[in-house]
Amino acid sequence: MTTSSELTHFFKPDSVAIIGSFRKGFFGGYVIVDSLLQGGYKGKIYPVNPNYEQVLGIRVYPSLEQIPGDIDLALIMINARGVPELIKQCADKGVKAAIIIADGFAERNEQGAQLQEQVQQLAKQAHIRLMGPNTAGVVNPIDNFYPCPYEAGYHTIQKGAIALISQTGMTNPQAFPYQDYHCGVSKICDLGNKCDVDECDLLEYLAEDEHTKVVGIYLEGIKDGKRFLRVARAVSSRKPVLIVKSGRTTQGAAASASHTGSMAVNDAIFDAVCAQTGVIRLDTFDELFEVPKIFATQPLPRGGRFGILTITGGMAVMAIDYGAPFGLQLAGMQPQTASFLDSIFSGSGHMPVDIGPMMAAVRGTFSRYHEILDALMADSNVDALLHIPWAHPSEDIIESYVRAYENIRGRYQKPVVTWVYGPSSQAVSELAYRLERMGFPVFKQLETAIKALGLALQYSQKRMASDAQ
Amino acid sequence: MTTSSELTHFFKPDSVAIIGSFRKGFFGGYVIVDSLLQGGYKGKIYPVNPNYEQVLGIRVYPSLEQIPGDIDLALIMINARGVPELIKQCADKGVKAAIIIADGFAERNEQGAQLQEQVQQLAKQAHIRLMGPNTAGVVNPIDNFYPCPYEAGYHTIQKGAIALISQTGMTNPQAFPYQDYHCGVSKICDLGNKCDVDECDLLEYLAEDEHTKVVGIYLEGIKDGKRFLRVARAVSSRKPVLIVKSGRTTQGAAASASHTGSMAVNDAIFDAVCAQTGVIRLDTFDELFEVPKIFATQPLPRGGRFGILTITGGMAVMAIDYGAPFGLQLAGMQPQTASFLDSIFSGSGHMPVDIGPMMAAVRGTFSRYHEILDALMADSNVDALLHIPWAHPSEDIIESYVRAYENIRGRYQKPVVTWVYGPSSQAVSELAYRLERMGFPVFKQLETAIKALGLALQYSQKRMASDAQ
Repeated sequence: MTTSSELTHFFKPDSVAIIGSFRKGFFGGYVIVDSLLQGGYKGKIYPVNPNYEQVLGIRVYPSLEQIPGDIDLALIMINARGVPELIKQCADKGVKAAIIIADGFAERNEQGAQLQEQVQQLAKQAHIRLMGPNTAGVVNPIDNFYPCPYEAGYHTIQKGAIALISQTGMTNPQAFPYQDYHCGVSKICDLGNKCDVDECDLLEYLAEDEHTKVVGIYLEGIKDGKRFLRVARAVSSRKPVLIVKSGRTTQGAAASASHTGSMAVNDAIFDAVCAQTGVIRLDTFDELFEVPKIFATQPLPRGGRFGILTITGGMAVMAIDYGAPFGLQLAGMQPQTASFLDSIFSGSGHMPVDIGPMMAAVRGTFSRYHEILDALMADSNVDALLHIPWAHPSEDIIESYVRAYENIRGRYQKPVVTWVYGPSSQAVSELAYRLERMGFPVFKQLETAIKALGLALQYSQKRMASDAQ
Repeated sequence: MTTSSELTHFFKPDSVAIIGSFRKGFFGGYVIVDSLLQGGYKGKIYPVNPNYEQVLGIRVYPSLEQIPGDIDLALIMINARGVPELIKQCADKGVKAAIIIADGFAERNEQGAQLQEQVQQLAKQAHIRLMGPNTAGVVNPIDNFYPCPYEAGYHTIQKGAIALISQTGMTNPQAFPYQDYHCGVSKICDLGNKCDVDECDLLEYLAEDEHTKVVGIYLEGIKDGKRFLRVARAVSSRKPVLIVKSGRTTQGAAASASHTGSMAVNDAIFDAVCAQTGVIRLDTFDELFEVPKIFATQPLPRGGRFGILTITGGMAVMAIDYGAPFGLQLAGMQPQTASFLDSIFSGSGHMPVDIGPMMAAVRGTFSRYHEILDALMADSNVDALLHIPWAHPSEDIIESYVRAYENIRGRYQKPVVTWVYGPSSQAVSELAYRLERMGFPVFKQLETAIKALGLALQYSQKRMASDAQ
């Protein structure tokens, strides 16, 4: 039984003990203490190791029992063999939760699996909640809690509405450039071998978390299928839950057994589970960072009629083609919108709005860009908009786009997805950065932009259908 | 009937006439002349327009007939209505080929379709080969020929072995950051409305092109199905041909009709065509720039046993899972390779080789990285290698990786695909750049790296099967 308050000890502890080596390097206790300090953690930090006196100006205690205060959370990175004894010490000390970063458990071999079983039993008896083993742990940007065991080279992440749960450290700061990720994050958690806390516990916790609007999950397997069905359905009806699951093939399943000791779920069954629970299944790891952005920043679409404003006709064809299986269809256009566009360039008043020919023929097209974008957003035929701007290094063009988005910002209850392309990676990045900072998601691939919009539509339709019941 | 020599006029003309406006701007004759000059074109340049005397220091002729020399190629960017008359002038002047950049033809309306038909007939009578209309034209980096009608902000592209044919200008320099694309290009061609030169002509031309090792194509439709079957099969048996095709859905097909006037092919039929001809079908536009890299730079795999060297166990699980449907399976390991790895860190001597735990436990792991990579490449169980390095901002790590690749370069007839990840976008880009400059393709997504390897395996197997017959 999990209660939200129990998991709070993992994400918002008042005090943490770090048990491990404090030698400077890419990995270890030193990195955690450094990361906690630089990330701005306000709670108490207790490094534990009999061979050190001090690390980064903080006193190191020879053992847990000599720590003067209470400990909410223990971060454990010692050799696996020593972990059972340490859990006993945690029990004696009244530690409430522990993250076992150490590896060498069920993912390694049979001996490791026995060790994991032993650790799990000891913790259970002492009412200590465990995360891991074999995990990179958690991050909570909202409360400036960054207990990162791997050196990332930066120390804070933009606060936001996306929670990421993962059965790998690949969503933790050392693996992903959160500094260049313009969409903020509420929580990150690597579940590791899931000997205690699992995806269902986290889902229940995040359903209650006021900062989290969407949950993205990478899983190798499901720990408790029955509970997952129940919890996933309940959480999905409140917040979108997006999952990438490996172990689709027998080869992949075998590999995940040796990675986190997971038992894989038959893939067709998992598809059925997603359909039943309303969980949205993603296909690639990259999508885990891309698709949640629409849910975190945009209103849900009320229908599938999407407008397209583009400077390339070819990509509009791709977008329409790719969107159709999601139920997206090219929007029509009100007469006043069409006549407005035709007044700028005859023949342009229809969807998709391809301003390529207009740009080539009419000087000053860009100075009217904000009017064009606004006209499409205001059109009652348009439920959502795909925008494909051309990020040319010319400052004028980029400013025209930014001005157009500033003009529509907050004025329409319709989602906008953007794919930026162009001859300069730097200009593409700059425009993407500026738009995302304004709250408009920009996707790295056109197909992902359309997919995000399509999944938002499907989620919206399910929610509307169940709200109507 | 196409002969290679006819298409040479498009890609390697001795003289070009540019008929259009020479007003400075993002688009037009001015941009073409500028691009030809800055790209280093050595042939004769004849701008044509009665309202100008000079552009960028070059004489502008009032009409084609007043040009003193012969003209291999005419680049036409005047109003569609004037194009038939201009083609007559081209005929009188003995122009050999013309690229009609102008739009407003079959993609616009019925009137435009009639105009296109008229232009086509006139050119045919005069034995002028046509590209377009409604095209951004061609680029030939090998011969420094950059007749770009849209301003890209840069002037040359790295020379290489990838040819890109497209039914959109989205593969031309103004749309894609070729400056940051580390894999070189041999030819680029936007087919536009394909009133004459089509995908089959280009395929036949590129099959003979000594600089082209792989052809990537974006199509909205096939002009001549029977011929395509024959040509695609013949070319595929010599060089890999990769195609992204839109118009998969009825909505997408309708959209492509108004984009380039294309008749779409039923999608299931197109799949069958690919299977019959050996053409490799891609799914996304991004893949068109990613997948060809393996064919351009790496030997074909002789079998599907792939080794993995990774610093993240989770991504190895994903890779194995994703690779299985392509026929890729995790390689085994020779005893001497296993004992070498175990000598560095006990328990690491098995596939996938996860150096994460080794790195955490053994100081100086990175100083031995070149030995580790080399041991895997040398292992006779390994037909191909997936490498997943962690691009941490630390200069030491990046240098260790670079040294490891330098060490294996040119020594093994086995493909290597790389996916770089890490906490710093800049470090990821830097490592990717350095590896690609050495000839090792680095993919933006793990899934694309595996897909590229899987498609190379399938192509290799087909080639081996047909060679054996």
